[in-house]
Amino acid sequence: MASTFGKIFSVTTWGESHGPAVGSVLDGCPAGLEITEEEVQAELNRRRPGQGKMTTARDEKDQVKILSGVFEGKTTGTPISFAVFNEDQRSHDYAEIQKWYRPGHADLCYDLKYGFRDYRGGGRSSARETIGRVAAGAVAKKLLKQVDGTEIIAWVNSIGEVDCGPLDLNSLTLEQIEKSPVRCPDLDASAKMEQAVLDARANGDSIGGTVCLLVKNPPVALGEPVFDRLDALLAQAMLSIPACKGFEIGSGFASARMHGSKHNDELYFDGHAYHTRTNNAGGSLGGISNGESIYCRMAFKPTATISQEQKTAGRGGENGTLAARGRHDPCVAVRAPVIVESMAALVLADLFLQQKRHCL
Amino acid sequence: MASTFGKIFSVTTWGESHGPAVGSVLDGCPAGLEITEEEVQAELNRRRPGQGKMTTARDEKDQVKILSGVFEGKTTGTPISFAVFNEDQRSHDYAEIQKWYRPGHADLCYDLKYGFRDYRGGGRSSARETIGRVAAGAVAKKLLKQVDGTEIIAWVNSIGEVDCGPLDLNSLTLEQIEKSPVRCPDLDASAKMEQAVLDARANGDSIGGTVCLLVKNPPVALGEPVFDRLDALLAQAMLSIPACKGFEIGSGFASARMHGSKHNDELYFDGHAYHTRTNNAGGSLGGISNGESIYCRMAFKPTATISQEQKTAGRGGENGTLAARGRHDPCVAVRAPVIVESMAALVLADLFLQQKRHCL
Amino acid sequence: MASTFGKIFSVTTWGESHGPAVGSVLDGCPAGLEITEEEVQAELNRRRPGQGKMTTARDEKDQVKILSGVFEGKTTGTPISFAVFNEDQRSHDYAEIQKWYRPGHADLCYDLKYGFRDYRGGGRSSARETIGRVAAGAVAKKLLKQVDGTEIIAWVNSIGEVDCGPLDLNSLTLEQIEKSPVRCPDLDASAKMEQAVLDARANGDSIGGTVCLLVKNPPVALGEPVFDRLDALLAQAMLSIPACKGFEIGSGFASARMHGSKHNDELYFDGHAYHTRTNNAGGSLGGISNGESIYCRMAFKPTATISQEQKTAGRGGENGTLAARGRHDPCVAVRAPVIVESMAALVLADLFLQQKRHCL
Amino acid sequence: MASTFGKIFSVTTWGESHGPAVGSVLDGCPAGLEITEEEVQAELNRRRPGQGKMTTARDEKDQVKILSGVFEGKTTGTPISFAVFNEDQRSHDYAEIQKWYRPGHADLCYDLKYGFRDYRGGGRSSARETIGRVAAGAVAKKLLKQVDGTEIIAWVNSIGEVDCGPLDLNSLTLEQIEKSPVRCPDLDASAKMEQAVLDARANGDSIGGTVCLLVKNPPVALGEPVFDRLDALLAQAMLSIPACKGFEIGSGFASARMHGSKHNDELYFDGHAYHTRTNNAGGSLGGISNGESIYCRMAFKPTATISQEQKTAGRGGENGTLAARGRHDPCVAVRAPVIVESMAALVLADLFLQQKRHCL
Repeated sequence: MASTFGKIFSVTTWGESHGPAVGSVLDGCPAGLEITEEEVQAELNRRRPGQGKMTTARDEKDQVKILSGVFEGKTTGTPISFAVFNEDQRSHDYAEIQKWYRPGHADLCYDLKYGFRDYRGGGRSSARETIGRVAAGAVAKKLLKQVDGTEIIAWVNSIGEVDCGPLDLNSLTLEQIEKSPVRCPDLDASAKMEQAVLDARANGDSIGGTVCLLVKNPPVALGEPVFDRLDALLAQAMLSIPACKGFEIGSGFASARMHGSKHNDELYFDGHAYHTRTNNAGGSLGGISNGESIYCRMAFKPTATISQEQKTAGRGGENGTLAARGRHDPCVAVRAPVIVESMAALVLADLFLQQKRHCL
Repeated sequence: MASTFGKIFSVTTWGESHGPAVGSVLDGCPAGLEITEEEVQAELNRRRPGQGKMTTARDEKDQVKILSGVFEGKTTGTPISFAVFNEDQRSHDYAEIQKWYRPGHADLCYDLKYGFRDYRGGGRSSARETIGRVAAGAVAKKLLKQVDGTEIIAWVNSIGEVDCGPLDLNSLTLEQIEKSPVRCPDLDASAKMEQAVLDARANGDSIGGTVCLLVKNPPVALGEPVFDRLDALLAQAMLSIPACKGFEIGSGFASARMHGSKHNDELYFDGHAYHTRTNNAGGSLGGISNGESIYCRMAFKPTATISQEQKTAGRGGENGTLAARGRHDPCVAVRAPVIVESMAALVLADLFLQQKRHCL
Repeated sequence: MASTFGKIFSVTTWGESHGPAVGSVLDGCPAGLEITEEEVQAELNRRRPGQGKMTTARDEKDQVKILSGVFEGKTTGTPISFAVFNEDQRSHDYAEIQKWYRPGHADLCYDLKYGFRDYRGGGRSSARETIGRVAAGAVAKKLLKQVDGTEIIAWVNSIGEVDCGPLDLNSLTLEQIEKSPVRCPDLDASAKMEQAVLDARANGDSIGGTVCLLVKNPPVALGEPVFDRLDALLAQAMLSIPACKGFEIGSGFASARMHGSKHNDELYFDGHAYHTRTNNAGGSLGGISNGESIYCRMAFKPTATISQEQKTAGRGGENGTLAARGRHDPCVAVRAPVIVESMAALVLADLFLQQKRHCL
Repeated sequence: MASTFGKIFSVTTWGESHGPAVGSVLDGCPAGLEITEEEVQAELNRRRPGQGKMTTARDEKDQVKILSGVFEGKTTGTPISFAVFNEDQRSHDYAEIQKWYRPGHADLCYDLKYGFRDYRGGGRSSARETIGRVAAGAVAKKLLKQVDGTEIIAWVNSIGEVDCGPLDLNSLTLEQIEKSPVRCPDLDASAKMEQAVLDARANGDSIGGTVCLLVKNPPVALGEPVFDRLDALLAQAMLSIPACKGFEIGSGFASARMHGSKHNDELYFDGHAYHTRTNNAGGSLGGISNGESIYCRMAFKPTATISQEQKTAGRGGENGTLAARGRHDPCVAVRAPVIVESMAALVLADLFLQQKRHCL
């Protein structure tokens, strides 16, 4: 069940980069939630390639079909099946990588694990697999929005050595983020990031980046100690995204350099609810949401597939060189935000429904 | 099932800090593995408090009993039940925190989630819960050691602003690490770290730190795409440890500043197996182990409970101050390595057994 | 995850009777197994309606598409996605049952559970949902056949008051069974069963039946005590089939009338393996397969939807009568055998792969 | 996780017949439920041996300890750990069965599965394993009683050829059942059953029986299509009890002989709720509870261990005879009712909490 995520609100993804289709099945969604193909499509459009010079030149419409679980515009409580048929596949682009293992890519590991692999475009390890997550995530977002007014947004916080400047998280909106071709709401930094991506592409190279996640108005009390703590599930969710190499919540690695007297967030009661004056915790204490915004940061490595020539080994044990062809994003971080948001929504929706067991 | 971790080789932990006992049940262990209470005890001894000035002054023997699943010195394939009865409890130390929420602690969140809480010593959110993990982890380590000669070690890499110097990971041993009172194998750095911990304690404060994990000779091909990727499960496992706020694998957050041409690890075949010349991947590509050492780094925040007076709120909505009493580790990172190793062993043992399904 | 069955080799089904499609995702299948759409189709053809007077008059081709997980004729180890697009739907046939709850049907319960329902043709409670199970079951059967020469066959053992006569289970073949229009290998009984089905249909009525399952050459040692015992999972699997009301294994309910001295199967060693002279156990002792044939019997109630007028209640609380229209099987037992076989294969394949963990 | 049952409200059992202790961990119980050791003990007392001539002569107090998860008399929402230390073990009684496989027992299968076994008293396959289920079941019963006034009772319906006469299920109480030494509320039948058990014991033999389960005032809408249907989970739960060989719900196997016009339960609305005039469904339609009483019947085979001499085979491949010594129940059905009730309560409590996800 390694292609299934979530215990009550659970998504199962399927599909390879160059197979007939990709998709997912979302099981356990409460009945009666209004959802349309258009709402799901809107999220997929943020993920799809062909969005300009910042992403791969492949032009895929990624048109989603809902094949079950929705009746007269509402979820029925039964599994919701999403499918996107693959279009612009060009399998011939990938012929050479049948022989050579691409450095930094999953090619060798798939051969080690399964004995052979679907070598066309990365197969299951392709980011196209995340289409099914984004489709299910659209439903999760809708659910959380309705029950608690929860907003989930993510943006690019750095590309290479270019960092986003300080942001006012309270006023930050998805619109601001999506205005930037690299999804960085600091427009000065955005321009420099664009240049860094173009430079990498021009050099036949790729570049890494970080992505920030912010969840405003999260439901309180979410997270199931001890192994399904909110932060633990977010960490799993984020590291399950291709190319993600690191996760931190709240002050994260910086907290390891701090004293407790500085790090502890002062608590106060404002007459209605408990709040903290700072948010070093990132919205999670003891693995349970405390009602403050959930704030995380993820590291994405540079795209493994580059067109520069690299030394590598082949399937038969030969050592040689490979200059990968094909069309690839020079910076995976640019398309990552909507995937990050979707995974966060899936985590929160599942924990939200699990928490219902205490409403006797 | 949030107290259960692992799909085939799965551990369920139970117990609160000040209840009668803590423990765990390990289900799914293959039959015939030799294991003794002494081997489990040796791991628990590395975790237990009262190990000198670097840890809490509580002196608990943490004597483990194996109540099932082992017969004539070997696992029987049935659930292995571990129990450690609590001794040095001093419930009276904790009376005041019944009223005030400790900043940085899970107190408020447990009340929000469950409606009330076992306020004695943190209850379930106490690090004593990890005893059950370490006991099960001892079995996992033994299993991995036998089947592949796998070695799992962890050490303190920084405390506050003091960083461990460069290490030769190939020759690093557990013995070197355990010689240091703060479990840092760089003895110069170790001495400075000790001072940083003593200073924090003297100030009624606490201090954060980072821990490194190294798995030598890991089995290849472990990790189940897409959600049970090796790196994703390690991230969940680590963030499920109390006070952990960040996880990175391989070059981690540094990879986000790199170009692909630099980050990609060059592959070669040495006549027997595939290897990489560098290990920016940290032993995992596409979420699957490639046979190189697995290398991760975790951030631990400073201990939440400090004796300095802090502003906070109380259960009835009052705002006031709290100076926590009781005996606490000034730096949780110091006792974290064996917990980190145990969680890594649990992840790897489970994935190892899952991978067996391909041996038709 | 209630639409997912199996822990390692796990199938997730989706789809409603009158939605765009039905299907399933099979995750955890070992890589390298040869499988074609034709092999899957052959099993679906045994399940599909329109097979003569014994089944519903709906004529659906139930053409399956494999959308992922198979490459160059072999499973890749990644999720296998099956889809069958619905054709002969005639939604207008079902307009009246939007108002009245059909007695014996799930209509009321779906409304109670989900607040509303997809009233077209039973929605998710329709037997069309089992298409996804049969598709995945075809892969499970192939796997078991290859590794142990396991044969899984099921047949109709009774319809109404007509019972199948004694059979030689050692020589019984699927071909014999499939020759009978009601899938009963005793051709005398088969003829009487046909008549009983025709009589029921002529009366606007339906009729119940029992189905037997036989697994020859099952792998030994399958079954995971204590809750995933072989017999317990078979029971769950069978009762999860629509209209199944009872399960027994080996001598089943008859064993409750026996003494131990009669019921116990005498054990002997034949020089190669252990065997029993009788098989009252039905191939499972302590919930683990002992190598003898697995033998079970299941009860299927008469089809709930009948065209005779029945008293019932409506959605708004009104009491009245309903004479259901639409095309329905007069005896669900007739199409049940391939579903029974598929569920048995899914149970055995999952337990077979779980047992691999003991092969250190 | 085969020793774990339930998805949200989940119990993990551990322990062997002759190990130091047996017990279980119950995870996912809502916080705030009042429960005492005495309430749990009362259920265990109904299960324990040494209750007179109808059960084994072993006299075990089976005194339960709650080691975690309850604070000041209420559940805390964290795992509840139960332990019963074994007392009257007499390992020497079992020396001979180390060599010979007992016919009808799990001995051979455990050796086939695990390579060796704990031969003392059946090890994990002993009915002592069910102590952990009954302890957790006591909590489940309490929960269901509080939320819906649900009553769960089970009784012996037949022993050998002696059947219980007709009962008025509406007025049947646990007190009536427990008055009978064989737990059959029809006192005439009870007397004959007692004699049948005594006869079997006198002959060094054992005897089978059936047990009925009745759940009054069950919550409506419980059951998760398609694989976690109420009836499917009940079937798994019952077949997971040692010696259970059959399960039927409602009219069960009798339904296979009926026509739909007879079997369908007529629906009506009484001004407050929907009801059926008959209950052939046994309280479950489409795998979902409809509010009528849940009614099931289970077959238990005769105890496998008998003192008559039987032919059998030995561990080294030798063929010979065995006359088992030791103290055993001549009829397992007599102590089965409380185990049946416990498993039913675990199923219902888990489904009840899962259903909460629809309360948005």
